[in-house]
Amino acid sequence: MVASPLFEKVALIGLGLIGSSLARVIKREGLAGEVIGCARSEKTLATALELGFVDRVEADAAKAVEDADFVVICTPIGAYKAIAEAIAPHLKKGAILSDVGSVKETVLRDLGPLVPEGVHFVPTHPVAGTEHSGPEAGFDGLFEGRWCVLTPMTGTAPEAIERVAELWRRAGSQVEIMDAAHHDKVMAITSHLPHLIAYTIVGTATDLEESERAEIVKFSASGFRDFTRIAASDPVMWRDIFLNNQSAVLEMLGRFTEDLTALQRAIRWGDGQTLEELFARTRAIRRSIIDARQA
Amino acid sequence: MVASPLFEKVALIGLGLIGSSLARVIKREGLAGEVIGCARSEKTLATALELGFVDRVEADAAKAVEDADFVVICTPIGAYKAIAEAIAPHLKKGAILSDVGSVKETVLRDLGPLVPEGVHFVPTHPVAGTEHSGPEAGFDGLFEGRWCVLTPMTGTAPEAIERVAELWRRAGSQVEIMDAAHHDKVMAITSHLPHLIAYTIVGTATDLEESERAEIVKFSASGFRDFTRIAASDPVMWRDIFLNNQSAVLEMLGRFTEDLTALQRAIRWGDGQTLEELFARTRAIRRSIIDARQA
Repeated sequence: MVASPLFEKVALIGLGLIGSSLARVIKREGLAGEVIGCARSEKTLATALELGFVDRVEADAAKAVEDADFVVICTPIGAYKAIAEAIAPHLKKGAILSDVGSVKETVLRDLGPLVPEGVHFVPTHPVAGTEHSGPEAGFDGLFEGRWCVLTPMTGTAPEAIERVAELWRRAGSQVEIMDAAHHDKVMAITSHLPHLIAYTIVGTATDLEESERAEIVKFSASGFRDFTRIAASDPVMWRDIFLNNQSAVLEMLGRFTEDLTALQRAIRWGDGQTLEELFARTRAIRRSIIDARQA
Repeated sequence: MVASPLFEKVALIGLGLIGSSLARVIKREGLAGEVIGCARSEKTLATALELGFVDRVEADAAKAVEDADFVVICTPIGAYKAIAEAIAPHLKKGAILSDVGSVKETVLRDLGPLVPEGVHFVPTHPVAGTEHSGPEAGFDGLFEGRWCVLTPMTGTAPEAIERVAELWRRAGSQVEIMDAAHHDKVMAITSHLPHLIAYTIVGTATDLEESERAEIVKFSASGFRDFTRIAASDPVMWRDIFLNNQSAVLEMLGRFTEDLTALQRAIRWGDGQTLEELFARTRAIRRSIIDARQA
């Protein structure tokens, strides 16, 4: 256990669902002497001050990170590189740099070389979220009972890793340290592919003739609405996830398409046995999830 | 409004989630003088009596329907034909025959010719369900706030249709009369395709290497668990839905696959604009669903 406050000065760059939820946790738990919020939009900064989950706001990332001993990038992944380039010269020696992105290998590859010597880089992925975005959508219970994956490079100072781990434990999460490439593969099937499929089917439905479209809304309770919830997630964040986890997503997508084609064939040829066998098999995994209390 | 009780004697053939929920509604609302439950399995019949949602049980469908003025087939669609052949000679003149299947055109085509003259055939589809099955899974609130679609053939007595409609209104549903083929198309996209996709991706995940499989359960909260819930639905019921709504499902599946292939290509070529445009578009349909209070 590390004594609280864990940090003197925390800078959060990006104040959307995850950033603002993390800020709320840091406030609630008293984990930092000061929390600085940084965002591009004036409106977001005003909201952050008004809701009071930061002590101070700063539009300029380079200024926000000055003297901070913990800096977390909470923007869509596509913005990381520019932010890292802007803040790198201003990071304090001994500071910890972290992020909360859903893809980790490209983050390590792209950000790693930009991290100045003497700064500890501990990439994280809190596996939590809702379909809502923005600073108003955040809440301090978001990470409760969820996993937070840390994917540090070998050679990272254990004290830095432990400090970040403790932060996430205080947020209510279970912390797991994982290889970045393995993390990206697991997320490709549990998160990225489900989102891609949900976006696709909701798009397919939206493209139907007008007469059918009205009824899709009406009869959405029959299965479709679960997909619409997933497909309401932040567009830019998800664009960047797919662009950054390209190979793992394409690999899982290939497997999925093969399996779907086999079922399509079974439907076309009236092969009820193939259908029933698969449908019976998938029930088991639902039970495991209920047993693991992730349902 | 039709005065209650609506029926003297109701026979429900099949006592799973839908059949047993309907029985509970009939009891709660006092819609029938007597409710007879019929099922193949001894265990189901015993459970039905024990839970008390029927007055009497009968293993033989032909006996169950004797003197009944309302008969509802609540089994998977694949069992319909054998049941209809068994009960047809025993249906009372003036009785109403109904069902609760999720596909309607093949039901009309296959059962229609078996319905004796003087018996009113009013196929229905209560658009409600959970991933649980069996007589214990039913509850009288299942149909509350949901739609119930009636797809009678032209020429069906309006009084019979109205009597069935009133039953479902008393169950808390909004009743809609629809052409069977149109119903099947709407359900193909809002319900059948989502289920097929969910079954497929859960199957794809289950086929992964053991090391990844454990982590799928662990990280299911990231999107996957919504699919596992859908993919835990009754295997036999769903097999029969796909076999009976073949052409509409294949049509929607074709559109979906085209759209998915386009996204796959966008990911492969790093075309972020295509991804973001679709992801932004799908948010709108979620809002319509929330506005329609089906979320």
